[in-house]
Amino acid sequence: MSSLGVGLIGTGYMGKCHALAWNAVASVFGDVARPRLVHLAEADAGLAAQRAAALGFARATGDWRALVADPEVDVVSVTTPNSFHPDMAIAVLEAGKHLWCEKPMAPSLADAERMLAAARASGRVAVLGYNYIQNPLIRHMGKLLAEGVLGTVHSVRIEMDEDFMADPEAPFSWKSEAGSGFGALDDFGVHPLSLLAMLFGLPEAVMADLAKPFATRQTADGGRREVETWDIANILLRLPEGVSGTILLSRSAWGRKGRIAVQVFGSRGSLVYDQERMNELALFTREGRPGEEGFRTILAAPAHPPYDRFVAAPGHGLGFNDLKVIEARELIAAIAGQAAHVIDFEQGFAIERAVHAMARSHREGRWVTL
Amino acid sequence: MSSLGVGLIGTGYMGKCHALAWNAVASVFGDVARPRLVHLAEADAGLAAQRAAALGFARATGDWRALVADPEVDVVSVTTPNSFHPDMAIAVLEAGKHLWCEKPMAPSLADAERMLAAARASGRVAVLGYNYIQNPLIRHMGKLLAEGVLGTVHSVRIEMDEDFMADPEAPFSWKSEAGSGFGALDDFGVHPLSLLAMLFGLPEAVMADLAKPFATRQTADGGRREVETWDIANILLRLPEGVSGTILLSRSAWGRKGRIAVQVFGSRGSLVYDQERMNELALFTREGRPGEEGFRTILAAPAHPPYDRFVAAPGHGLGFNDLKVIEARELIAAIAGQAAHVIDFEQGFAIERAVHAMARSHREGRWVTL
Amino acid sequence: MSSLGVGLIGTGYMGKCHALAWNAVASVFGDVARPRLVHLAEADAGLAAQRAAALGFARATGDWRALVADPEVDVVSVTTPNSFHPDMAIAVLEAGKHLWCEKPMAPSLADAERMLAAARASGRVAVLGYNYIQNPLIRHMGKLLAEGVLGTVHSVRIEMDEDFMADPEAPFSWKSEAGSGFGALDDFGVHPLSLLAMLFGLPEAVMADLAKPFATRQTADGGRREVETWDIANILLRLPEGVSGTILLSRSAWGRKGRIAVQVFGSRGSLVYDQERMNELALFTREGRPGEEGFRTILAAPAHPPYDRFVAAPGHGLGFNDLKVIEARELIAAIAGQAAHVIDFEQGFAIERAVHAMARSHREGRWVTL
Amino acid sequence: MSSLGVGLIGTGYMGKCHALAWNAVASVFGDVARPRLVHLAEADAGLAAQRAAALGFARATGDWRALVADPEVDVVSVTTPNSFHPDMAIAVLEAGKHLWCEKPMAPSLADAERMLAAARASGRVAVLGYNYIQNPLIRHMGKLLAEGVLGTVHSVRIEMDEDFMADPEAPFSWKSEAGSGFGALDDFGVHPLSLLAMLFGLPEAVMADLAKPFATRQTADGGRREVETWDIANILLRLPEGVSGTILLSRSAWGRKGRIAVQVFGSRGSLVYDQERMNELALFTREGRPGEEGFRTILAAPAHPPYDRFVAAPGHGLGFNDLKVIEARELIAAIAGQAAHVIDFEQGFAIERAVHAMARSHREGRWVTL
Repeated sequence: MSSLGVGLIGTGYMGKCHALAWNAVASVFGDVARPRLVHLAEADAGLAAQRAAALGFARATGDWRALVADPEVDVVSVTTPNSFHPDMAIAVLEAGKHLWCEKPMAPSLADAERMLAAARASGRVAVLGYNYIQNPLIRHMGKLLAEGVLGTVHSVRIEMDEDFMADPEAPFSWKSEAGSGFGALDDFGVHPLSLLAMLFGLPEAVMADLAKPFATRQTADGGRREVETWDIANILLRLPEGVSGTILLSRSAWGRKGRIAVQVFGSRGSLVYDQERMNELALFTREGRPGEEGFRTILAAPAHPPYDRFVAAPGHGLGFNDLKVIEARELIAAIAGQAAHVIDFEQGFAIERAVHAMARSHREGRWVTL
Repeated sequence: MSSLGVGLIGTGYMGKCHALAWNAVASVFGDVARPRLVHLAEADAGLAAQRAAALGFARATGDWRALVADPEVDVVSVTTPNSFHPDMAIAVLEAGKHLWCEKPMAPSLADAERMLAAARASGRVAVLGYNYIQNPLIRHMGKLLAEGVLGTVHSVRIEMDEDFMADPEAPFSWKSEAGSGFGALDDFGVHPLSLLAMLFGLPEAVMADLAKPFATRQTADGGRREVETWDIANILLRLPEGVSGTILLSRSAWGRKGRIAVQVFGSRGSLVYDQERMNELALFTREGRPGEEGFRTILAAPAHPPYDRFVAAPGHGLGFNDLKVIEARELIAAIAGQAAHVIDFEQGFAIERAVHAMARSHREGRWVTL
Repeated sequence: MSSLGVGLIGTGYMGKCHALAWNAVASVFGDVARPRLVHLAEADAGLAAQRAAALGFARATGDWRALVADPEVDVVSVTTPNSFHPDMAIAVLEAGKHLWCEKPMAPSLADAERMLAAARASGRVAVLGYNYIQNPLIRHMGKLLAEGVLGTVHSVRIEMDEDFMADPEAPFSWKSEAGSGFGALDDFGVHPLSLLAMLFGLPEAVMADLAKPFATRQTADGGRREVETWDIANILLRLPEGVSGTILLSRSAWGRKGRIAVQVFGSRGSLVYDQERMNELALFTREGRPGEEGFRTILAAPAHPPYDRFVAAPGHGLGFNDLKVIEARELIAAIAGQAAHVIDFEQGFAIERAVHAMARSHREGRWVTL
Repeated sequence: MSSLGVGLIGTGYMGKCHALAWNAVASVFGDVARPRLVHLAEADAGLAAQRAAALGFARATGDWRALVADPEVDVVSVTTPNSFHPDMAIAVLEAGKHLWCEKPMAPSLADAERMLAAARASGRVAVLGYNYIQNPLIRHMGKLLAEGVLGTVHSVRIEMDEDFMADPEAPFSWKSEAGSGFGALDDFGVHPLSLLAMLFGLPEAVMADLAKPFATRQTADGGRREVETWDIANILLRLPEGVSGTILLSRSAWGRKGRIAVQVFGSRGSLVYDQERMNELALFTREGRPGEEGFRTILAAPAHPPYDRFVAAPGHGLGFNDLKVIEARELIAAIAGQAAHVIDFEQGFAIERAVHAMARSHREGRWVTL
């Protein structure tokens, strides 16, 4: 495959992460053509030029449509706030480019559906930025499950917690406006759903309870404004093949910084994982002697591909950004028509539909079937 | 207060635990009269005599009613299977004795209600064996909450997991019969509820999802029998003062041996506890400098009374049986008319009512208000 | 065996621990006669009477020699400060009683040697209070080693740390006087040596480096006095059969409360233990697949006798005081002429000789052979 | 500063790591000119060409001297086996290029000294690849120590363990030949010494005990050959300002994959770190209330620069390779004449001298002063 020309729209937290991944992927993997960093778009031309220099892109623009129109651009990373995704994603796909769009797709389900339609119509690769599924240990979890190491899985619990909304004295922000979505449900809920999609399939029925830890937050003028989103979401799940599940989410969990705690229980063993210790996976299987049973802490190692592409020695640890490099590699594989471990727009839309079903189950106080 | 005469009915796992506690409580605390181990009842006279010798009781009987009638007995420990509790508890109370009854009260709510009525009528102390609330670190958690160290609490999660039902090849047992109750809900559910009762109050509304990891289990004759109880229970909770909560329970969680994982989140901090590491409590509070924030692992110490009555040095660890000694001390205080940290029959009945509400919410697929 | 009559000299931290153990041992184990708590001695008669009542002893005295002379006393617990051990221990043994003496034997090696001679001459059981070796998980470690689960062991590391001397502002105390011994070396050093004695044999050569974290400490009169003992000791060891070892000790390690961290490495696996988590043992053995290798965290369970005598369920945890109950059981076995898992005066003296060799190696800056 | 032209000699484990770092550093930091990957040398021209393509270097050669002579090359990464370092490093420096050389400098102290002389004579920047010192949490440890958060430090312990030599059945390799050095002492010993150099200064006196877990290993012809290096090294240290220290090393510690466990104790607190959990740092300081004291687990965060250059959110984790990117940034700063956090050849030589002193102290069985 010849080298891909890359366009990047947005250079915030995730934009930089995409840029680093595009820059590293060829050297890490060694078996793909080195992507060309062709064009970068930011809110204005000055910022774009500055960021293009910093991130190594050849051209810069303050008009993202110019980037989409650039014939040297083969694939576009969209890393802007969610509300911009629909227009940008559809434009990229209609221009016949491949698309790497950050999650979630869009605040409204209707917009997400339009994006999905555009992806289908384009015949191009359209992938969402669900990086946690790329962790070699999460992939290894999938391998162990596929091999039946846990026997038949019967229950799954996932928690996702951070504390960026935990301070009741922090000023009212757009995160507390209804326009930003439901709150923890779309900020975080999509990540556990991406893991479920990979490991077990998406839920068939959901029952959620959303909560607001703080009813109001202070505004710039010294007043208080009612909070419209839910920083907490607890969801009961019925997964395919009778698997029972739960997802517990909080954006207001003091001390949690990047916790995604997964517990999987089967007829022959259990698996436990926490993203805050992303280089460890705990496995329990029934051993011969009861006196020597216990959870085994597996450290990430070359035996968990593609860890080996990053580090030759076990236990030396990958980082968050490395996951995005793996994701870039999978995207390149998908573009090359190979099997790839990604969340495409089909699955991505199913995830967003599940999120909306959760919100409805909360409003209606009953199970919602998908 | 003069010395209490103790009767013990049942000498299984918890019966022995009661005996050890009655035997140790005076020496550990040093400020109560040494209980006299007067009478022990078991299924037959032979076994009773043997267990009385082993556990240091003066008299033995195969007829528990004889023990209840013994005028030297002031307080009776009832540690038999749940289905025996109603008759025994009511007899003890009607005989004018104090009662220490293992939890839960009874398989049926009607029986539990009769027991409560008997307790009210007797004017005697009737206490349930909820030992986890006695852990000095759980008490310290309560102290920290009362002092407002976490600010206003807004969410609580409790998990309780063991693996004694995790093996699908294990033979069908009474634990899988409907007569034994709902399964994880009453085996385990009552413990998280006892912690909630102590720390936050019991739930105002519940929504449960129960699950059977294994539809059938094998019978002695080589056939298979349908399982009638639920080894898994996931419950959404609405607690007093707007606190959001969850309880997740499993008797089929391979590798979990005595996990009771508690997470409490408030406006100023968080508390995390796991019974499998019962001598540790993790506390997060907002510190001055962001670079030094983190969960602090507090080791049990004399600063957490009554740890100091057991060990003079910090970090040396209490054990499960020590919790029962503390419970005995609290019971003696209650009998002496002092304030005591116990779950009495009023609270115990409220706990069992909550369990039955959970079961109903599962059957009806909707929230049930208490 | 008929019931033992017990005398207890000293009722401080360890004295109470002995009393609790004597009180509990029969009920916990169920297969030994219930010891009779006959006589208790304290510094004066008033205190003795009060403590005898609190701890359940029949008689009390302010004169420990009266206790030793009591014909109903068969075995004496000596739990006074070390400097009292020689006189008391020798008197007990000369009176033909069995002896349970707290460790270490005596500040001076000459005194320890006299105690050993008295034990030999008496023909009585003389046991030292090395309770950590009684932890069911430490015993299980011994079993795994004996079975060759680790293959041939080639190295061992033990750390023991607390922080009771960590505060440089704390007033000068007897712990900093030369008369109290060497410091960390005898306070703590004897414990790792007791573990080594049980698991591998005592060292054949030692090389120590002692250190004083604080050169002076403040005195009551506002002055400062030079510290004469070493709160820190680091020791290189050569153990039998070519095993390489280290012992690192500190009484001034802020945050460590009861840490005894053991690491054992062999040709086929490793074992890791920390007394602050005394109900956990981590075992690594070479497994079939490199991707599933890891340290397995084994929770204390009935499969680790005599845990089963305390609790019927796994993962529920023993406490520090339970170790002393096991020690009492072993002592009773020894008195009955059965094989027992104890440190007797022969081994205890060898331990103290090793401590003195360590001190000499520090003074002389060279290896000392034992 | 204009862009640096980079040459890379060697593309094994560390060679690739250098390539990834050179490739990423400008995008991660955004404030340095993007290095040009000019020239790559490998053992033969074919391999060199292949690796240059994979790693993004413009030119390739089978003759490293051609790379050194390339006028477009400003700085050379030397990542070949240690025995090649002296010739290559001296050639690079004599050619007036800057040098980034993997550690340790050379098997023989005489060679290391020649390398140091060449660096001094060249006036160029010559830096060693001690990447662990670049971890933002290790740097934060340095900051906390400098601020006196621990008070006066009095003791330090460092362990470094892996298991790549743990298997006694593995065939005899060059790692067991005397020509490769002392064994664990130079493989691992230099890393703890680099940490000490940064945090406390290098030891003033050392006393080591080296050990061979396996006396012989099997050879290809089915025989056995005597092992000439020591897989285990235990070292007592006397550090500047009276700090007491230990370094314990093993290449044969089953289950340890990248453990570098650091414990620092001071008059007001303690710090604990383990490289296997490189995104966590545990800090104990004396708090107000004894009941709330404990080690605080700090997760790596933007508050620990330059973590913020990689990830904007706390607790998301850096990886091993990210440390090398930071090292590259420091090297670029050094070349620009700015203050830089690196181990240069002066300090690097002092580290190697300490290693040789340790070996001598083992041979002579006594302390060796530096």
